[in-house]
Amino acid sequence: MSDIKYTIGIDYGTLSGRALLVRVSDGCEMGSSVFAYPHGVMDEALDAPAGKIPLQPDWALEHPADYLEVLRRTVPAVIAECGVDPADVIGIGIDFTSCTLIPTYADGTPLCLTAEFENDPYAYPILWKHHAAQKYANRLNAIAAERNEPWLKYYGGAISSEWTFPKIWQVLEEAPHVYEKAAKFIECGDWIVWQLTGNPTRGGCHEGYKSMYTDDGYPSPDFFRALDPRLENVIADKCSDPVLSPGQRAGTLTEEWAETLGLTPGIAVAVSVPDAHVASPAMRVGKIGRLLAIMGTSTCHLLVSDKLVPVPGICGVVKDGVLPGFYGYEAGQGCVGDHFAWFVDHFTPVSYHEEALSRGLTDIQLMSEKADALRPGESGILTLDWWNGNRSILVDTDLSGMFLGMTLTTKPEELFRALLEATAFGTRMIVENYREHGIEVNEYIAAGGIAKKAPGMMQIYADVTGMEIHIASSTQGPALGSSIYAACAAGAENGGYGSIAEASEKMGTKYDKTYRPIPENKAVYDKLYAEYRLLHDYFGRGENNVMKRLRDLKAEIRK
Amino acid sequence: MSDIKYTIGIDYGTLSGRALLVRVSDGCEMGSSVFAYPHGVMDEALDAPAGKIPLQPDWALEHPADYLEVLRRTVPAVIAECGVDPADVIGIGIDFTSCTLIPTYADGTPLCLTAEFENDPYAYPILWKHHAAQKYANRLNAIAAERNEPWLKYYGGAISSEWTFPKIWQVLEEAPHVYEKAAKFIECGDWIVWQLTGNPTRGGCHEGYKSMYTDDGYPSPDFFRALDPRLENVIADKCSDPVLSPGQRAGTLTEEWAETLGLTPGIAVAVSVPDAHVASPAMRVGKIGRLLAIMGTSTCHLLVSDKLVPVPGICGVVKDGVLPGFYGYEAGQGCVGDHFAWFVDHFTPVSYHEEALSRGLTDIQLMSEKADALRPGESGILTLDWWNGNRSILVDTDLSGMFLGMTLTTKPEELFRALLEATAFGTRMIVENYREHGIEVNEYIAAGGIAKKAPGMMQIYADVTGMEIHIASSTQGPALGSSIYAACAAGAENGGYGSIAEASEKMGTKYDKTYRPIPENKAVYDKLYAEYRLLHDYFGRGENNVMKRLRDLKAEIRK
Repeated sequence: MSDIKYTIGIDYGTLSGRALLVRVSDGCEMGSSVFAYPHGVMDEALDAPAGKIPLQPDWALEHPADYLEVLRRTVPAVIAECGVDPADVIGIGIDFTSCTLIPTYADGTPLCLTAEFENDPYAYPILWKHHAAQKYANRLNAIAAERNEPWLKYYGGAISSEWTFPKIWQVLEEAPHVYEKAAKFIECGDWIVWQLTGNPTRGGCHEGYKSMYTDDGYPSPDFFRALDPRLENVIADKCSDPVLSPGQRAGTLTEEWAETLGLTPGIAVAVSVPDAHVASPAMRVGKIGRLLAIMGTSTCHLLVSDKLVPVPGICGVVKDGVLPGFYGYEAGQGCVGDHFAWFVDHFTPVSYHEEALSRGLTDIQLMSEKADALRPGESGILTLDWWNGNRSILVDTDLSGMFLGMTLTTKPEELFRALLEATAFGTRMIVENYREHGIEVNEYIAAGGIAKKAPGMMQIYADVTGMEIHIASSTQGPALGSSIYAACAAGAENGGYGSIAEASEKMGTKYDKTYRPIPENKAVYDKLYAEYRLLHDYFGRGENNVMKRLRDLKAEIRK
Repeated sequence: MSDIKYTIGIDYGTLSGRALLVRVSDGCEMGSSVFAYPHGVMDEALDAPAGKIPLQPDWALEHPADYLEVLRRTVPAVIAECGVDPADVIGIGIDFTSCTLIPTYADGTPLCLTAEFENDPYAYPILWKHHAAQKYANRLNAIAAERNEPWLKYYGGAISSEWTFPKIWQVLEEAPHVYEKAAKFIECGDWIVWQLTGNPTRGGCHEGYKSMYTDDGYPSPDFFRALDPRLENVIADKCSDPVLSPGQRAGTLTEEWAETLGLTPGIAVAVSVPDAHVASPAMRVGKIGRLLAIMGTSTCHLLVSDKLVPVPGICGVVKDGVLPGFYGYEAGQGCVGDHFAWFVDHFTPVSYHEEALSRGLTDIQLMSEKADALRPGESGILTLDWWNGNRSILVDTDLSGMFLGMTLTTKPEELFRALLEATAFGTRMIVENYREHGIEVNEYIAAGGIAKKAPGMMQIYADVTGMEIHIASSTQGPALGSSIYAACAAGAENGGYGSIAEASEKMGTKYDKTYRPIPENKAVYDKLYAEYRLLHDYFGRGENNVMKRLRDLKAEIRK
């Protein structure tokens, strides 16, 4: 044991989990270890003991064994790699995609890990981007609006199908036996903390943004009865655990897990936090008007304000939800990096692939290089970035993507660049929507893998939004945030910190690069944005619901 | 010399020329020879003696030396291959893409083959799919409409930018020195006939469909003066040659060309015919209500009727234009096979390419196989097939393509199939437009490469249009048609025929396969067609001119 203390932040993303070992004194990132989920995202078939079970369109499941394997693999690996004394690790923090929901028995065993349910898709973790509950979200929103539910306005006026209750309602309706047997429906992040501590808790940030948990608690039994009488007591029966704020201690590490991980029993485990919000202390977002965009497969936009304003089309505004002492606003784009991966995975032609190989580049590096060489407007392509629906500001996962403007001379990189640009236009819609409702936005902090790796894209974002874009030095925003919360959970008495503000100040990242708008590019993008906005409203606000009708037809044909 | 006589049909397509040797008695196709144009289509840069000269967007040029090389290579090759006595060849017929226009001196020398003009893009053959003259077409149409020009209604109410006078006007405006030096602007098909015979003539079918040549002759000098005073005498000065009907003799083969080709001097050379219309006698289209679709890079729809009706949005109706004795209606889709080639060339992923290689398939065969395995409606993708603009029924080359409905699980073959389907929807628009204007359509004859090679696509066409589709046995419709016209030009006295009807009856193709609509597919496609029609009108009829604005912006940026 030494005077130098460490915490471990464990970041559960969509495809892998990562452990980051961080020095508490100054936030120095000592090392990290990643483990990709062996089952990945199951969106075409469930990989069950009985074999591959086909899934309906818009489903997305994961496997809980993958999550536990992340702990077993990455924690010992990062400690070994860094050569630190395990006794100097004073806490663990967990962040997780959200809302990713798992049904469990009362002892924490997932239904899907038992013989009774191992071949039942409804018993598996329902990934955040599972979109098959849209019709339940639509009904829930209609009923909430009709009843004038007081919480509705704080969630942009509509609940996403990605959130807790549409998903639970889908299970109830379509697999009532699973609903009945489940003692709890719980966020997978909270489930991991429960495993590590033996103590079920719920992260206030998950509950605030995804389960409509406000100062008045959850929505009333009356409301749930209006959805379905069988849901009346869903909170009391299936969702009741202590709700803790980010940085609070959920419990301490069990003997069994301490042994498995090679750590000290009894060290602090912080309550789980969604994998976006958790980056806030790491990115030092505690300044009004500073928008944090965590850019990865999807983008989450976080912002603090001293004002509580119901802004339509955002994901939510939650008191203390981003950082204690502020109203925390969240908006989001459900598909960002996923677009680019989809494009490059499916549409990299052989000649590009060979060029990339010969130059030692990946396909996406080559495609990005070609896209970066284009000038704004020269491709004539306009895109709607809705491959995974539209989270903000339309809150509609039934929307889909569009490419427009192709000719016979259109090249792959032109479509690729148009996808990049479309995500920037989507961001500008969110920023302008905030401003139209009196919420200040004047600085843009970009974090996440894309922010560092895609300079051409970041310049497009600066040109499209007209804002300076600062890039965070740390590429490990979520895991670093988890390690900061772990230091808070440990507390000053154990070598950690007594407040989030102090921990954020000491352990948070620097900003090391700034992209500035280029006026002539901005002028072109103002024109393209006007076109984007016109089509955004035409397809997204009901004038032509062709995207929904096509989706309905597809579901009918595939039934 | 024997009693068995032959003719040679020479078919000039977009990328290659083909000579077909045909037995006059029964239309038996003895053999053929193809030569691909070494310069291909020049749409990014002109390959000039001074080096590569970049072209503006929407340009498309070719090289006249390529056309002459087709004669030198293919005619001797096909005679040698078939082992016939050259003395038994009694005539040559030429068909050519249209309107593909070349400026020449009075002796027939192309301007672009002289030192003065060899580096000037405006002096080269302007290919049919050159679309940079759209603004001239727009002005011409506005002026013609304002003046209520009598011929306008026979061309669907609008002239295409692909036709003669928008192209000539572009040259005049943008390269007045080329206009001035040109003694003639002439169809390349007529130019080839001129080379072979020493005798300049013009094909009535080209002139009727592409140069507004009606029973009253060309539009008046008054009209041309209204466009631009310098154009007043464009017909008298630059376009005056005898206009002959299909099957008429343009002249006889010169000594020099007879020697080059290894044929007999003095044999008949038929007047040139556009490469679509020429297929009519080969496909036996002389029956009212029988629509001939010649499906290749683009599709040309030909139909005869006993009624003269001005149908909006068609390419034109010309007396005797398809076959003597009927009003010949032409409509078209400017991009069909070109879509599929574009997609497969640019978007075949490595894994598909490798699968194709390992199974001995081409990329397009594999992509088609995967697309054919999908059910109507199951992809959720809807496409507007306007990569090369819309010829009928919107007559607007400034439109562009659209894909809509993509999600993260969308696969390449789903986009590919949606492209196939979109071209079928485009065909249905044309058929319904005819019917709405009282022109009968009840049989569909498919000819051209795609008709034979793409059974999945032909089934889609049957399902979308609700019509039976008959496939012509001959895959050489144009070349066979040229050989039939060559037999007519030779005349009965030389072993040919005295009438087109007789030649068509003896030498024309059989139909050897029929696709019938599948009712449940038709029901799904009726729904998708309704969506197509909605977007067709929204983007194509002025409600949202985003495609045109994007194209303008692109041209401005690339300037």
